[in-house]
Order: sequence, then C-alpha cells, then structure tokens
Amino acid sequence: MNITPNETHNPNLKSWVESANDPNSEFPIQNLPLCVFAATHGEGTEQHTHAHQGVAIGDQILDVGMLGESGYLEREGSSELLDALEQGYWFGFAESPRLMGELRTILQRFLSEEGGGQGIRRLRDKALRPQSETHLLPPLPIINYTDFYASVHHATTVGAMFRPEQPLLPNYKHVPIGYHGRASSIILSGSKITRPSGQQSPAEGQSEPTFGPCKMLDYELEVGAYIARGNQLGEPVPIGLAHEHLFGLCLVNDWSARDVQKWEYQPLGPFLAKNFATSISPYIVTMDALAPFRRAAMERPAGDPKPLAYLFDDEDQKNGGFEITLEVYLLTSQMAEKKMAPHRLSRGSFRDMYWTFGQMLTHHTSNGCNLLSGDLIASGTVSGKEADSRGCLLELTWDGMGEGGKPKPRKPIQLPSGETRTFLADGDTVIFKGFCEREGYRKIGFGECWGRIFAAGGA
Amino acid sequence: MNITPNETHNPNLKSWVESANDPNSEFPIQNLPLCVFAATHGEGTEQHTHAHQGVAIGDQILDVGMLGESGYLEREGSSELLDALEQGYWFGFAESPRLMGELRTILQRFLSEEGGGQGIRRLRDKALRPQSETHLLPPLPIINYTDFYASVHHATTVGAMFRPEQPLLPNYKHVPIGYHGRASSIILSGSKITRPSGQQSPAEGQSEPTFGPCKMLDYELEVGAYIARGNQLGEPVPIGLAHEHLFGLCLVNDWSARDVQKWEYQPLGPFLAKNFATSISPYIVTMDALAPFRRAAMERPAGDPKPLAYLFDDEDQKNGGFEITLEVYLLTSQMAEKKMAPHRLSRGSFRDMYWTFGQMLTHHTSNGCNLLSGDLIASGTVSGKEADSRGCLLELTWDGMGEGGKPKPRKPIQLPSGETRTFLADGDTVIFKGFCEREGYRKIGFGECWGRIFAAGGA
Repeated sequence: MNITPNETHNPNLKSWVESANDPNSEFPIQNLPLCVFAATHGEGTEQHTHAHQGVAIGDQILDVGMLGESGYLEREGSSELLDALEQGYWFGFAESPRLMGELRTILQRFLSEEGGGQGIRRLRDKALRPQSETHLLPPLPIINYTDFYASVHHATTVGAMFRPEQPLLPNYKHVPIGYHGRASSIILSGSKITRPSGQQSPAEGQSEPTFGPCKMLDYELEVGAYIARGNQLGEPVPIGLAHEHLFGLCLVNDWSARDVQKWEYQPLGPFLAKNFATSISPYIVTMDALAPFRRAAMERPAGDPKPLAYLFDDEDQKNGGFEITLEVYLLTSQMAEKKMAPHRLSRGSFRDMYWTFGQMLTHHTSNGCNLLSGDLIASGTVSGKEADSRGCLLELTWDGMGEGGKPKPRKPIQLPSGETRTFLADGDTVIFKGFCEREGYRKIGFGECWGRIFAAGGA
Repeated sequence: MNITPNETHNPNLKSWVESANDPNSEFPIQNLPLCVFAATHGEGTEQHTHAHQGVAIGDQILDVGMLGESGYLEREGSSELLDALEQGYWFGFAESPRLMGELRTILQRFLSEEGGGQGIRRLRDKALRPQSETHLLPPLPIINYTDFYASVHHATTVGAMFRPEQPLLPNYKHVPIGYHGRASSIILSGSKITRPSGQQSPAEGQSEPTFGPCKMLDYELEVGAYIARGNQLGEPVPIGLAHEHLFGLCLVNDWSARDVQKWEYQPLGPFLAKNFATSISPYIVTMDALAPFRRAAMERPAGDPKPLAYLFDDEDQKNGGFEITLEVYLLTSQMAEKKMAPHRLSRGSFRDMYWTFGQMLTHHTSNGCNLLSGDLIASGTVSGKEADSRGCLLELTWDGMGEGGKPKPRKPIQLPSGETRTFLADGDTVIFKGFCEREGYRKIGFGECWGRIFAAGGA
C-alpha cells in the first residue's frame, strides 16, 4: 500500500489557480479530490449533457473528461488513461492505483506549470469551471453500502441508553460490527431531506404504536471508504492486502429517525430508521492525497483483547488509521434569516476508531462476501471520548440515567439565536466538515456534506 | 391490480411444445415464467454471446429476444414491445403491466397455434432450446435486496431459542420486520455454495471467540418478489397501490451460518451470517400467471391487533396472499452416489404469512425509501404451524428446552441413506420446489432453487 508521502505532497508546489494557494483552501494542488459533474456540450437545440470526471482545485473544478477529449492526457501519459476515463465515473482508476498515480502526477503538472504555448493557455481556460456553478453528481454509483459501528465511544454511550446494565456487548471488541445499509437512498450533499414518517412505540399506558412524522430526527457523522478493486465471491481479502482495496474517503451523514429505530430495531437491526436518506460529500479524497495523514490504529486500552489473527497485521496497526478532524455545524432557519453563522455542535477526530477500515474490509470479506468496485463502507458514528466530540444528537443531548434507573430528561443544546435543540427541527441545515492538517503539509479538505430538513410529506 | 384469472388461464389451452401439456409440467402455456439466458450468435471466430430474454415452456426455453429480432413481435403487437425488449433484462416489462400482458398474449398465441406458413414453422424450430442445455442468467440484475421476517411461526420458534421468556417481541404484530440483505452475493440456482468461515462465540469457559469454518450451516426457504415500477425517494406507496409495484415471484434460499449469526447479530442484525450467498430460482413467475392462486391475507388469531391504517386495505386483505406449496429436499453426496432420490425435509405453504407482500412493500416505502425496478424483497423463512412445514434446519432439528432452562440437544434428521443431519454437511445439495395448484387450473411451477455445499476455502 502506498502510504508514504511523496513528491506529490511537496508543500511548495503552487498552482496557477490562485484560490488553491490560499493556506485555508480545502483543495490545494496536493489534494485533487475526484468528482463527477454534468458537463454541457454544444449549443441551442444541439445541446446535450454528459457526466464528466473532474477534480476540485481551489474554488474551481478541473474538467478531466475534457482534458481526455482534447488529446492532452494522451500526449502526456499512457493510452490506458483514456480507456480508464471511458469506463465512466472513476471506475477505471478505482481498479488501478498505478493509473490513479499517473493521472495525479499529470494533473499536478498541468495545474502547476505556468507558461506554455497558446494552445495550452486556451486549454487552461476551457478546463476550469467555478465549483459554485457546477452541478455535481455522485463520483461512483454506489451499488452496495455497508455501515459499521467502529467507534467504541459511540457504541458505549448509545449502549448505556438501551442497556444500562451492559452498555458494550460481549462481541464488540472482537467483531467489527456492521450491517447493510440502503444504497438506493444515498444522495449527494445538498439534496433535500424530507422528515420521514414511521411507527413509534406505544405511548405509556397504551398498547398500540403510532404512525406519524419522526419526532427524534438526528444526524450521524461518519467517514465513508470507497472500494477500489473488488474481490470475487468466496475469496476473502487478507488483512495484509486490505488497504489496496481502499480507493478514497468521503464524509457520510447517516440520517437517523431515533424513535422509529427504537421501536423497529429488534431483532434484525435498523431499517426504516435509516434508509430514508444517507448523504455523502461529493468528492473522493484519494489514498494518495491522504498519505501524510495516516497514523497508527487506535491503541487498545490495557485489558482489551488483541484482534483475532485474521484481523491483525503489523502494517495495519502502524498505518491503518487516519488523522481527520471532523466538525458538525447547525444552521436553523431563524439563524439563516438573521444571517448568523452556523453554530458548531461538535469537533472530533477520526483517530479514535476501534477498528481500521482495513479491519472492516477484511472482516466483511472473511466469509467470502464479494465487494464491488465503487461500493461504500462507512465507519459508523464517529464519537470521541470528550463530550463535545460526539457525532450525533442522540449522544450530545444525553444526560445519563437518573434515579430509579430512568433516563434523565435530555439536555437541549443552546443555540446563539436563543433557540434550543434536542433533535432536528424542520428548516434546520446540518453541515459536516472534515480536513487533515499536519505541520509541514498543506491542508487536505473533504468538502462539505450538508442537508436541510423539510417537513414530512403531506404535512 | 389484475388479480382476476382471465382467458390466459384457460386450462384447455395446449401448446405444440408437447412437454408443456404434461399435467405434471411446471411450465404449461399458462405459466410462461420469465428468464434471461446466454444466446450465441454466429460461428467460429465470429461467435459472440448476448443476454436474451426467454420464457420457460415445458422442458424448453422460448427465445423471446429472437422473436423480437425476427420481426415477429413487431408484426403481432405494438412497437413498444421491441423498445421494452431492448431495455435489456425484463426492465421494460417490469415497468409496464400493460406490455407484460400484451407479450403474454402474443407468446401464448405463438405457442398454441398449429399450422402457419413455412416461415412460422422455421421460426418455431429456431425459437426453442432445451432448458437442460441453456445457460440461464439472472432475469433482472438485483440492485437492492431486502429480507423480511413475515412468518409468525418462524419468528416464534426461533425467538423461543434465543429469548425463551419472550419468543415474540412486542413490535412483531405491528411492524413487518425487515432488514437489508446483500445484493452482490445473490447468485443463481445451481451456483456453488462455499462453506463460509467466521467468528463463533467463545467456547464454554473460554473468553476468546474462535474463527473458522461455520459448523451450523443452514438454508432458509423463502419466497422473493421482484419490484415492478419503483417509487421516487420521499414518495411512499400507499397500501392500495402496493400490488401494482409487484412484478413476479421466485424462490429464495437465504443460506445462513447459525453459529456466526448467534455471535454477531447484536445489536445491528445479521451480517456475515447471511451475505456469503443467497440463491434465487432463475425464473420470474409473473403476477398474471399467479392470478388464480391469490388468496386472502392470513386471518389474524383472535386478540391480535389489527394492522395500523397505513398497512390495512380491504383488497389486500381479500387477495394479498398467495397459495404456493413449498418443499425442501436434501441429497447428500452418499445418496447421490447410491442414485437415491432426494429426501423431502419439509412441505409447507406460503398462505400462512403474517404479512402480505403488499404490506411489506408499503411499510418499506412508508418513510420515503425508494425501491428500484428489479429490486428483490424476500419474505423471510416460510414456516407453518406444523413441525414438518418448518423452512430451515434451525427449526426442524430444534427439540425445545430441557430442564434448567437449557436447550435439549438438537434432534438429528434421519435420512434414508442411514445418515443423519443436524445442519448441512459438505457435499449436501439442498433443493427448493414451489408450485401452485387449484382445481380447474393448470399447475404453475417456480422451477428449482438448488445449491451444493463445498468445503470452506483453504480447507
């Protein structure tokens, strides 16, 4: 696995796209996260729209599809680059780390070199479009989506609510717990979130459950990993090779209807509480871009079991983690009207996950289950030890157990607008941010993953 | 919804395909279940393979794709038929019950009329191929797979094993419990089943779980429904329209690793215990073919709650069920060597399901979740009240609780070869059969869903 920062991370490398050189930019020339967008060809009645591959640079999108069509990539690199582009989306590159590396080098050269002939200068102008005016599409069509539960802090806090006598189940420290999510309802950042309706437990003293709009709507802050090469059915991926099957990361909001979840989840797990919408950030931040931000897997507290042999690998222990800062912001419609800034609800790090993506992937395939190129595996809610690093409202507004073993009333969050929130209200916008920072390196950002809540249908 | 048997069920209708007129045939001219197969064009170096649509008739497959290419469908029906065929698989017909009905009528005419000119006679010869020599493919590429838990008998028996004090959870009679399965590992009947490896609970007195080949490999007898038209994200399908979104049924074997399941399933549900393989029978038995075998939804025992309003519809109560006889057979490798016939393990009916497919579909979309054309929803294990109608070995070999609240040793099944089985052994072949029978109608069969167990990889 290529986890050594190399010359493509040279902090002195600058771009002629000025906005990319701003030290606060999420998308310097060292990042180049992958996206797909709707590109329009021709004019008038001849106009038609294609899905083009692109990468973010500063506040622009570089049209990689157009660089292919123009002949530039063919002149600068191997002919396989064009074949890979023509597979559509980022499939051709997901399947070949070598081609991904080659493209990254060519794009960095294109974006850094000044001068060149008139042809190159014209190409530069044509190849850029402002992000704010670009209609982004999913970078890979996700066929299978799996959601894990890899934060021991999240599992412990949530477990304490449902099973105070046994917050963490006996399997947790042995099994990277996961379940299948719904692929069809994965939507891009910015898509509308309609408050779901669903069954909720019978009210106290009643025997019948009720059906209606969710009253405990929540977000879940997660990191997702796109699968690079897949594996054949019946052929597990050993832990020593797991990282070669990871293509890149994104932010994931696994929106959750907590009241629905509580009533439905036994015995087969969450279903309608989750599958009404899952938002993803629009970019794939590649493993190459993340190389300087690898770190050791979480150190297990003394007394915790060592992972079973099939989940243990020295290299994965040493470099299987990622140092990513994750933030959640809330903007209510009242705050938006008053032009207030979004309010930060939490700030945490991805470093404290109990399981690495390598372990999740190997576990997933350990029974022979086949992963496909472009599948998404998400980490589960990312929560840290500290109260302000918890990745969902279910945890943030939890106030523990009171007398008689009954939960204390939830503690609402105070917002700068004077409003309070225990769960999400209609009109609320939730914004996730993620970025990597390290002395001597440029910041690598993920782009936002946001969604706004709309009232339940028919309401 | 078209649930009235019509002239396409005329029992006197016969085919010039003689094998279809045998009263024991699963595939009379009244059935015509849909499939896709690999058709070879050209010869020698010019040979290439296409996926063609077909229908089963007697012991033959009728090449519907070829009837389209030959111009026959265009002469006999609307031009939309060709457009629908060209969408590939059965998508075009899944989305249009009208076109499905039109095609059914044309194919019945083609298969029933004798005589005709030389051209028609040549077409007849060219359009048939023996099932035994045909390489079948999945009839629709399943993108999303959901598995329900709709047999109250199954839920109660299995619940008693895990929670003797509360076999049926409080939500069961209100919520059609379901969860997302894995679409990538759905395979066609006949595909090899490799025994999965996985984590199993710590042995008594041990603290560490073990990892190795599953010791409690099981089948689960289910019926699956293909989604016809999908629904948009955020737009639930009301129960009164649910049946219009069902395209046809098939048999499903949701292979299960019980030891893995027991250890992993809390709190997010089954995962690796299931996603190593799910077998489907190769045909879609259409709603038109099943019309005479509709029946009322299961009558709920006195005292059971009425379904909530969003799950209750008069028409669904009256006609939402299906009368399908389901059988499971086992053939060990020893029995095969001795040329013995497969041994029947169970025989039950689909009539006793607590929830109809209409209710499952409406519940699935009640939060706005979008179903796609070609998605599969499966019923969960079909078990009846009687001991010999239980749809998995977990139930069939269960002998109840003994003294001290500990389960009694499982009661092995005695096979005619002198062998016994508690769970599946390597070399075992499991065969599902399903068919509908009713006085005055031809038998409508599903075709087999079978799979043979191979030793765990590396073993």
